[in-house]
Amino acid sequence: MSNTPIWSVDEHLDDILGSIRPLEPIELPLQDAQGCVLVEDVTVQISLPPFDNSSMDGYAVRTTDVAGAGKEFPAVLTVIGDVAAGSGELPTVGPGEAARIMTGAPLPPGAEAVVPVEWTDGGSGSGAATTMRAASGAPEGASGEVRVYREAEARAHVRAEGSDVRPGDLALEAGTVLGPPQIGLLAAIGRGTVRVRPRPRVVVLSTGSELVQPGEALAGGQIYDSNSFALAAAARDAGAIAYRVGAVTDDADTLRATIEEQLVRADLLVTTGGVSVGAYDVVKEALSSVGDAFFPAGDDADGDAGSEERGSDAGGTGVDFRKLAMQPGKPQGFGSIGPDHTPLLALPGNPVSSYVSFELFVRPAIRALMGLTEVGRPSVRAVLKADKALTSPQARRQFLRGVYDAAAGTVTPVGGSGSHLIAALAHADCLIVVPEDATGVEPGTELEVILLG
Amino acid sequence: MSNTPIWSVDEHLDDILGSIRPLEPIELPLQDAQGCVLVEDVTVQISLPPFDNSSMDGYAVRTTDVAGAGKEFPAVLTVIGDVAAGSGELPTVGPGEAARIMTGAPLPPGAEAVVPVEWTDGGSGSGAATTMRAASGAPEGASGEVRVYREAEARAHVRAEGSDVRPGDLALEAGTVLGPPQIGLLAAIGRGTVRVRPRPRVVVLSTGSELVQPGEALAGGQIYDSNSFALAAAARDAGAIAYRVGAVTDDADTLRATIEEQLVRADLLVTTGGVSVGAYDVVKEALSSVGDAFFPAGDDADGDAGSEERGSDAGGTGVDFRKLAMQPGKPQGFGSIGPDHTPLLALPGNPVSSYVSFELFVRPAIRALMGLTEVGRPSVRAVLKADKALTSPQARRQFLRGVYDAAAGTVTPVGGSGSHLIAALAHADCLIVVPEDATGVEPGTELEVILLG
Repeated sequence: MSNTPIWSVDEHLDDILGSIRPLEPIELPLQDAQGCVLVEDVTVQISLPPFDNSSMDGYAVRTTDVAGAGKEFPAVLTVIGDVAAGSGELPTVGPGEAARIMTGAPLPPGAEAVVPVEWTDGGSGSGAATTMRAASGAPEGASGEVRVYREAEARAHVRAEGSDVRPGDLALEAGTVLGPPQIGLLAAIGRGTVRVRPRPRVVVLSTGSELVQPGEALAGGQIYDSNSFALAAAARDAGAIAYRVGAVTDDADTLRATIEEQLVRADLLVTTGGVSVGAYDVVKEALSSVGDAFFPAGDDADGDAGSEERGSDAGGTGVDFRKLAMQPGKPQGFGSIGPDHTPLLALPGNPVSSYVSFELFVRPAIRALMGLTEVGRPSVRAVLKADKALTSPQARRQFLRGVYDAAAGTVTPVGGSGSHLIAALAHADCLIVVPEDATGVEPGTELEVILLG
Repeated sequence: MSNTPIWSVDEHLDDILGSIRPLEPIELPLQDAQGCVLVEDVTVQISLPPFDNSSMDGYAVRTTDVAGAGKEFPAVLTVIGDVAAGSGELPTVGPGEAARIMTGAPLPPGAEAVVPVEWTDGGSGSGAATTMRAASGAPEGASGEVRVYREAEARAHVRAEGSDVRPGDLALEAGTVLGPPQIGLLAAIGRGTVRVRPRPRVVVLSTGSELVQPGEALAGGQIYDSNSFALAAAARDAGAIAYRVGAVTDDADTLRATIEEQLVRADLLVTTGGVSVGAYDVVKEALSSVGDAFFPAGDDADGDAGSEERGSDAGGTGVDFRKLAMQPGKPQGFGSIGPDHTPLLALPGNPVSSYVSFELFVRPAIRALMGLTEVGRPSVRAVLKADKALTSPQARRQFLRGVYDAAAGTVTPVGGSGSHLIAALAHADCLIVVPEDATGVEPGTELEVILLG
């Protein structure tokens, strides 16, 4: 009976991604940049290693002094001292001399190679050594004589200056996601801070006069607020800093005031509930067609760079409410509000609808704000394993909860198609995608499966 | 030349996992339990939905009143009021009457079904409706007459009380990892707190007099501390709360004092460097054979439950230093220290060695503390793609850095086997495992590949 236009899932996602721009980069201390996207090509300024150094605990020697050395006829060298890692002043190793040297310590002048302690008597005079005597307990270990039982080639057990990286080398490209090894490399080349896109701050608020916080008692007609908990957790999981706002009552002025208050800490706003055709659909009522102008632009003098970057006009797109050709999740809202044109996604209120909508639209939005290029979940093809055929509404893309068996290449639905079946969702690890043109799917059919978590 | 026993990678990991016990459970607010392992079977105390409610915005009706209704001969009903979500007092729907009802609102007494607003004139008298008039703007929408253009079966568009879960149902089993959907389910059934194993607090400290913090200037013989950054990030990535302690100088007393100071916030201590055979291997010197007794037990009156759980004797295993049949990462230390027998893993100091050691031993230890059953990284088989054969030391399991191509089923080594090649590590996404008995691996050979990140 309705002539309202229907958008496809892909059209809606394209509209969202088409209007969301990555957050402005900031310089962050290295330890705070984990999981962020680098926005600069990082060029190495030093050599790694910065100096020739020993790869073993042993003795720094001149190769001619140990030429021909063997178990029966060891080379006997005078130990002139210790070279520890971090040693600034180095002894010079002359003919017939050796310096006791530790892993990572600079190769002292005169020395051409390192013989590991296991190829010597450790300066003990009592045959093959397995270890050095601790410097603190036996300082005499760094003097006297050492017997060397093998010869050594030049540069043996020496890590050459610049053998890992050299000044001018590209350490990491812009666009790299900073995981532990990348953070390790940046530290190793001396970078204490790094220029990245920050994690988006995502404010999640649920709406509904019927909502009660978990732990409190339910009165008649009330249910527990679960969406704000699930979606704040999902936002964190996607890489965001999430702020959960307790449920807002179904009153347009209260909702507008709450959103206005939250804008200061939001790079993205997510609401649940109140987006359908009912008389109390407060999100739709409060945000429909009002545009950014509904939210006072504030004093423009305080406008940050991001605000100007995103458009200098005071008004904005407002929030557009649509019907989508999907199940669950038909009613959806998207737009931007406030002086900074903060993007807002308005999701339906049923727990399964809101979670599926989050996966399809909010997670990609968060990851686009982070500057990631892969914004969606991975998907695979799997064969439907079920007792009977699935039914699916015509002309709607259906997302069923499933359990994926990677080894067998199969997927099994859990629970039904009802958008309130949150218990089944908690036991699923994937979403089964039933295409728009299918009204039934026989067991054995290959389908797309979106892998969660 | 050495008779020191050599442990295999598997023996060392077995020893670690054999001595690590999951952390004592605590009751956490739901939003703080994300990623944690549930230690209780959670049973549902309420019905979900808690009451029969509407799945659509529309009109709650008696089925006989709309029997035979069609587009040409609509049923005309008297609208007696609104039932919004959260409504406490409900009107009774009598013969010839309808109540305007919102999605999620309780089905009022007398009503047997809901007709969606799109099957009515929305009470407007002007033909088929697509939406309701907002209650705030048009309160008259809840009175007058509504024309209904279709009939409705009993229970149509009604979600039945308990159709998702019922009291006594098992919501989640002990052992479940709490992701967003599980947190959503717990909130939906009213749980504000939940009993889980907490995230382990992992203190990471690097040792070495040569270490300088990134961002500062290097003097002769110095290098930047990268391990504490990389491993703190890796610990966070594994699920821990990580505390990075700046590099500690190679002095046994300083190290012992630092560790003693950190014990108060550590469920696990990780050190890097100073574990080999050199004269300045401070971790080994400070922690070898000293046992837990080296660290004063403190006032036992303050001992927490965890301490007693883990053993009431004041002494402990101390830290055992070993040589492992692996490359990189041959020298390793493991044991427990302090009054709470806090586990400590002492890793070698080379950046690649310490990172590989973390992946093989520390990550599983962290995940065992969390109570997870899958403690290791996933591994796959892949075909070696390389220009020439790889060489590998006899009787040592080698871990090379590689790039895995899932589509092709191949793995390509990046960088060489040197344990200082941190630049290559930052461009790898997997570890290639070359078994102990292999001294060379030809291209085309199938190998185990440990997938990182």
